[in-house]
Amino acid sequence: MAKSKLIILEGMECCGKSTQINLLKEYFANHQKDFLLIKEPGQTKLGQKLREILLFNDEPIDPITQSFMFNACRSDIYKKHVIPNLGKDIFLIQDRAWTTTIVYQGFAFQQDLKRIEDACYLAVQDIMPDLIIFLDIEMDKYEKILKERLLNRSNEKVNHFDEKEFSFYQRAYDGYQYLANKFKDKWFKVDALQPIEAIHQQIVQEIEKRFN
Amino acid sequence: MAKSKLIILEGMECCGKSTQINLLKEYFANHQKDFLLIKEPGQTKLGQKLREILLFNDEPIDPITQSFMFNACRSDIYKKHVIPNLGKDIFLIQDRAWTTTIVYQGFAFQQDLKRIEDACYLAVQDIMPDLIIFLDIEMDKYEKILKERLLNRSNEKVNHFDEKEFSFYQRAYDGYQYLANKFKDKWFKVDALQPIEAIHQQIVQEIEKRFN
Repeated sequence: MAKSKLIILEGMECCGKSTQINLLKEYFANHQKDFLLIKEPGQTKLGQKLREILLFNDEPIDPITQSFMFNACRSDIYKKHVIPNLGKDIFLIQDRAWTTTIVYQGFAFQQDLKRIEDACYLAVQDIMPDLIIFLDIEMDKYEKILKERLLNRSNEKVNHFDEKEFSFYQRAYDGYQYLANKFKDKWFKVDALQPIEAIHQQIVQEIEKRFN
Repeated sequence: MAKSKLIILEGMECCGKSTQINLLKEYFANHQKDFLLIKEPGQTKLGQKLREILLFNDEPIDPITQSFMFNACRSDIYKKHVIPNLGKDIFLIQDRAWTTTIVYQGFAFQQDLKRIEDACYLAVQDIMPDLIIFLDIEMDKYEKILKERLLNRSNEKVNHFDEKEFSFYQRAYDGYQYLANKFKDKWFKVDALQPIEAIHQQIVQEIEKRFN
């Protein structure tokens, strides 16, 4: 049985995650490595329906209800895309995962952390990633970046997760520190304020080191 | 602060629950008692959207994903209808509740019971009912009743929860026995094969005994 290669990409909003995922796709393609990019929550048809409700419901949805809806998407994704590919020679790259629910609903929204974690582990059937790549921006630099981004997005359709107080993001960052500590041996932190190509190279080196 | 009056009505499919709920509505109305009937999963707008997906998604939804979707509906219902009414002089009558998820997803579908229970308690914020009324039909009589019902319903729109093996219902019944044992002091079992009016009278007597 091949070693599984389940990798989660995480980071605060606007950390450059999408850019790095695109570079990673190119890297896997250029190196003839099989990969599957798995995006939460909308990877499956069911997930797309729930995502639409989560983002654009006519009234905001409370954090516990959100956590159940994200876990419903996640459970469907694991059933259809993760579990059938475990043990195959394929890189499964998760763009956000249960980690995001712990960080946002657990820490940022300050809900019952222990039970939210347990619900996440139920959704993923206790399948843990082999590597979590965290694109890190320290909080003292993050506030300015976030404000610029929100200004740039002012003409876009605003969803329920936009425009929070900065303390919300500080608590989310605390959530990432909690996960970094809990999953020490799987955690790989990259400084997300470096040049794009430098970040990409560090991610690729880590992947080659872990999975070759 | 008035004593809360949160009552769950439970029973296997086709046990006559809807009939008893209608009689109970009449009773509360005739006796000038405030009441609110709370139906899962579709009590709220969000619940209606999720219910539609649960019943008529273009492919069946796996039991863990179902449990998260039911808990999302439930969390929304508790936030909007249960919690704001606790401590008021009003009867809150739940037509199905978290108990149903334990019985169906936990027992009948044989999923991780402990975690499903914990997720339910997260959804209801640990708010426990004051009374659970169980319309009981013993299993040796139930199979015939269920078959007749399914024959009668053959022209209706069939949803994902219809037409299971009988062993599925036997496991559900085991689930009710588990709850009966766990919530002994809140559990009121009525023989659901008695005449409709006799069942109603026993339910009313139990409610008057508990809440007067």
